[in-house]
Amino acid sequence: MLYSDNITKVCPEVMAAIQAVDQGDSEPHGADSVSGRLDESFSALFETEVRVFPVATGIAANALSLALVTPPYGTIYCHKRAHVQTTECGAPEHWTGGARLTLFAGEHNRIPVAEIAAALENWNPARPQALRPATPTLTQATEAGTIYCLEHISELAELAHEYGLAVHMDGARFANAVAALGCSPAEMTWKAGVDILSFGATKNGGMCADAVVVFKPELMETARYTRLRAGHEFSKMRFLSAQLEAMVADGLYLRNAAHANAMARRLGDGLVERAGGEIVHPTEINELFIRLPTPVTDGLVAGGIPIRPLAKDDPRPFFRFVTAWNTSPADVDGLVACAADLAT
Amino acid sequence: MLYSDNITKVCPEVMAAIQAVDQGDSEPHGADSVSGRLDESFSALFETEVRVFPVATGIAANALSLALVTPPYGTIYCHKRAHVQTTECGAPEHWTGGARLTLFAGEHNRIPVAEIAAALENWNPARPQALRPATPTLTQATEAGTIYCLEHISELAELAHEYGLAVHMDGARFANAVAALGCSPAEMTWKAGVDILSFGATKNGGMCADAVVVFKPELMETARYTRLRAGHEFSKMRFLSAQLEAMVADGLYLRNAAHANAMARRLGDGLVERAGGEIVHPTEINELFIRLPTPVTDGLVAGGIPIRPLAKDDPRPFFRFVTAWNTSPADVDGLVACAADLAT
Amino acid sequence: MLYSDNITKVCPEVMAAIQAVDQGDSEPHGADSVSGRLDESFSALFETEVRVFPVATGIAANALSLALVTPPYGTIYCHKRAHVQTTECGAPEHWTGGARLTLFAGEHNRIPVAEIAAALENWNPARPQALRPATPTLTQATEAGTIYCLEHISELAELAHEYGLAVHMDGARFANAVAALGCSPAEMTWKAGVDILSFGATKNGGMCADAVVVFKPELMETARYTRLRAGHEFSKMRFLSAQLEAMVADGLYLRNAAHANAMARRLGDGLVERAGGEIVHPTEINELFIRLPTPVTDGLVAGGIPIRPLAKDDPRPFFRFVTAWNTSPADVDGLVACAADLAT
Amino acid sequence: MLYSDNITKVCPEVMAAIQAVDQGDSEPHGADSVSGRLDESFSALFETEVRVFPVATGIAANALSLALVTPPYGTIYCHKRAHVQTTECGAPEHWTGGARLTLFAGEHNRIPVAEIAAALENWNPARPQALRPATPTLTQATEAGTIYCLEHISELAELAHEYGLAVHMDGARFANAVAALGCSPAEMTWKAGVDILSFGATKNGGMCADAVVVFKPELMETARYTRLRAGHEFSKMRFLSAQLEAMVADGLYLRNAAHANAMARRLGDGLVERAGGEIVHPTEINELFIRLPTPVTDGLVAGGIPIRPLAKDDPRPFFRFVTAWNTSPADVDGLVACAADLAT
Repeated sequence: MLYSDNITKVCPEVMAAIQAVDQGDSEPHGADSVSGRLDESFSALFETEVRVFPVATGIAANALSLALVTPPYGTIYCHKRAHVQTTECGAPEHWTGGARLTLFAGEHNRIPVAEIAAALENWNPARPQALRPATPTLTQATEAGTIYCLEHISELAELAHEYGLAVHMDGARFANAVAALGCSPAEMTWKAGVDILSFGATKNGGMCADAVVVFKPELMETARYTRLRAGHEFSKMRFLSAQLEAMVADGLYLRNAAHANAMARRLGDGLVERAGGEIVHPTEINELFIRLPTPVTDGLVAGGIPIRPLAKDDPRPFFRFVTAWNTSPADVDGLVACAADLAT
Repeated sequence: MLYSDNITKVCPEVMAAIQAVDQGDSEPHGADSVSGRLDESFSALFETEVRVFPVATGIAANALSLALVTPPYGTIYCHKRAHVQTTECGAPEHWTGGARLTLFAGEHNRIPVAEIAAALENWNPARPQALRPATPTLTQATEAGTIYCLEHISELAELAHEYGLAVHMDGARFANAVAALGCSPAEMTWKAGVDILSFGATKNGGMCADAVVVFKPELMETARYTRLRAGHEFSKMRFLSAQLEAMVADGLYLRNAAHANAMARRLGDGLVERAGGEIVHPTEINELFIRLPTPVTDGLVAGGIPIRPLAKDDPRPFFRFVTAWNTSPADVDGLVACAADLAT
Repeated sequence: MLYSDNITKVCPEVMAAIQAVDQGDSEPHGADSVSGRLDESFSALFETEVRVFPVATGIAANALSLALVTPPYGTIYCHKRAHVQTTECGAPEHWTGGARLTLFAGEHNRIPVAEIAAALENWNPARPQALRPATPTLTQATEAGTIYCLEHISELAELAHEYGLAVHMDGARFANAVAALGCSPAEMTWKAGVDILSFGATKNGGMCADAVVVFKPELMETARYTRLRAGHEFSKMRFLSAQLEAMVADGLYLRNAAHANAMARRLGDGLVERAGGEIVHPTEINELFIRLPTPVTDGLVAGGIPIRPLAKDDPRPFFRFVTAWNTSPADVDGLVACAADLAT
Repeated sequence: MLYSDNITKVCPEVMAAIQAVDQGDSEPHGADSVSGRLDESFSALFETEVRVFPVATGIAANALSLALVTPPYGTIYCHKRAHVQTTECGAPEHWTGGARLTLFAGEHNRIPVAEIAAALENWNPARPQALRPATPTLTQATEAGTIYCLEHISELAELAHEYGLAVHMDGARFANAVAALGCSPAEMTWKAGVDILSFGATKNGGMCADAVVVFKPELMETARYTRLRAGHEFSKMRFLSAQLEAMVADGLYLRNAAHANAMARRLGDGLVERAGGEIVHPTEINELFIRLPTPVTDGLVAGGIPIRPLAKDDPRPFFRFVTAWNTSPADVDGLVACAADLAT
């Protein structure tokens, strides 16, 4: 099954970390030793002092992040296909107390800087009727499986900062983007101007572990209160912290992501070469968006492979495949072979 | 360490269940088979058709429950020492959109029915200034380690229903209360008039598993949407569902709780008999509230036992001990012996 | 000045009504006699039993209306140029507790029924990620100065009701629409399927008087509580109620609106015939959207007439003129003459 | 009728001001000239630069004020009989996004500084479970008709500022308190440490005019956005601004209040001397709280005077009388004479 990366099992290192903290009693609510050293681990990872707020889901990470930097009368700038808009049931609105999402188009799900610039230039502070510009949010990697290059992020952040706005990065597939860019986590975030980050671990081999990484210490207090009243401060926090620690401890997050990325490219290459596939979005991470001949897709469905066209009404529908930390070359090659057979 | 039941490790059966679902891929967001049969398990447990909404924490369970039955302009009736008031950072206010908690006193943390009756009689629907009475919430067992008897619950629920109000039960220690009463889960909830329940498993041996049990089908839709936007619908839901399933599957929840309860009684008996202890609240579940001679408490602290007086200014302070599913008779007896030595 | 209908003075009948209630003491918070008979007046006007909730502004009327029928996890369907979207600073989000606006295009600011139908068909109740469809809101008359015909409203409402949704009408210019259609208020609202109405009086000669008209009695309780906590239940409510009573008492609302409508047509006709104007949206109420030759608009601006192009970047910008209850034929003719001079 | 000061007509100067601005067209949303100079008028009144945000009601003024300085996870410190707690239907909770009111007792409805001090000392920033201390709010004058002396206010504000908290004053009867203290508005507010003020004019002769006075410029932006989305920015703002301007222009607010205060004392003196009255709270403003012999109160009720005991269950119930700007000595003397007759 290659249709999502949140269907996989927990990767062994993370499961081992969970079991390792399941020994005897431990202080609750983050006062345990694993949780206590998490800020340090992430500060090392990001090469600057950060605070980490683990939460149960990516939706919580995004909504908490946005609530920290967006007033209720603010508007969040996001791509019209961003996860915060399409798939989070209004979590940003709920957590911020009624802020709004302003939607932007943009090829391969990237928001062009010029679009944000135009919106900000049109802003008239003397006319509050249209809400206050608040927080550009970038999904890195995007929902189209593409990534923002560092220059794009920097340029956008610089613009936002000129207007006094904070920049959020939805990093549900943060590791995949870092692996793809070959840069450091620091370069892709605060060095490029990102102020707050949703760090995703669940899709990358975790069990239930995402986190808000706060680069600005003044947001720390609000973060802790908000997380608590949202019900995301686990009483047995160590089981959450341990997952994140295992992820970043020795580069596991990056190995898992690099592998998944490679599997997506392998799948794409195979389907293009052998099954008549046409790439729709550049395959930059672990997601493949591809058009396939109808006999192929019909045959796959008939064979029990759960694929669905992304836009039902599209005359030339395309499909999404998602690889994961545990997708094997054999899985990929098997699917390619099957498609190749159907294509001939 | 006997100062909380959320400091313990995960009980082996629950950990085994987590590992059992960590096999291969599985549908996300509750579409997996374990999550799929959870409603059935809980319906069997409660001897009626219910819907279960697992969430990460007890705070989330309480806040989601209250948000389902309380309008933003409603007021929740709770004991002034209820967890929702003292320890949840305003989660009820946040999730309901600004409802209020109205506080009641009552011996051993139980709200007398007469107090609720008086409040409802004073309600003047033509005077909305004082908010609308909305939801009595009972903590079962209470924060004083006591339980509401079935008659108390029924009487209170009957009264609430007369006024068209729903009744919430905060069951963070639900199992301990069931074990103490020797009744069925059904008798302690819907048969007594409870409309919505926070079912706690984390304190009772879970890792991060509490749940909202909905006895009224019409609340189901709101429950799912609200949980999702609050970030509590795990993408890998099976890891959450499995914990709850293991808990109720063959009575584990009850065995764990009965054991913890017995350990608290054993500790209380020992400290009273051998260390000059005086019971403050009846020891009905796994919590012991006790006054101890100063030499005893000083000695325990000096010996590294983490106990704290509950009310600093009290001239005769008292202490809380909490036993858990994994507290051993030896743990208890050791502590008693140590206290007995100090008392002489 | 013909650039807005909220810049005018209060019409004499309304001012007289305000002064008439300024006699001696009177019960507060709507218990006075004028407020007491307001439901009756509006029930007569609408030929059915309604409840009226006066508020200070049109924004409050819209937001209260929407909050009555939209859950926090719901999405409101509106035109992308609807006042609730463009000009209310997120009031719907604030009052509903974080609902969302879903935007639709449509010629002359009318939402095509087919667009709503498509959105509803795409709704998958098993996928709450995309929020729950909640409330179509129609601006009658629209922000383009056009009206929905009765069939359009009925068709849209029938569709909404099939899905169990309530329909809201933003009637900031309700009277202008009724006058234009020549129908009864009943025909344009509940007989066509409207469930809740923002009734605007401020633009039509009031001082600070808009109202929510509730056609469903079960919304009454929530309406009163919500209005109160939003700070819109005036302690001296009679001054608000009197304005609304004067408006509907003997058809004043309709006379004012019909006059304003006629003046807009007169202005449009004049500018088309004598100043090279080109109508942009049909002139159906008291708003005129028109393109004018550059020399005309430049000359008007030079002469101190405050007109502004509506879309700055439009190569052929157009202008909005708004007439009001007190616009005189002489005002109109003077402007036309001036424009005609500039055009030659 | 002496049971409330929100039952009176509008005072002639305010009505004249309303009519004075009802001339021709005027810019909407506060861009008119009267609104434009309001900040200046209030800055002169308060002897420092302030910003004024007129709103329709006192509830709105309080809720907006509190929302400006209280985070959603904050707790507001108020007297348990404060209007924000007893009579505003949860407006503070609604506007702040779910903050809480923490209640304090205190003689004659004044919060002792020591109580606030104790609460703040108990605050443990490492334990967010109990919410964050946020905003002490003082009702000046109180709901018991008493006033805080300047030293009390200063002391409390100094304490709050030590903890980084802002201080709110609910001045629904601000003028009455200023008149009673014989101090300047500046002395009673910012010079004593008040950071934000609800300035009440409705009870003091206005029609629908209360305002938030902001002493800290950094709150200005949030104030405007929040007021707008709450529906309190009147499109025809001049009718609201004119009321406030008339109030402060030449000391009208103070004359009205001083008169009302004098009438309450006259009434109290008369009822004590001639009808067996016993004062319950010191009569410091325009409210009288008094016990009267049962024959007197029975007789008054029988005679159609609308008085009600404040606490039904009190064995010795007492009554509230409220005088206003237009209460005449004859009104007072007539009531006293009537009571005196009944007492003999």
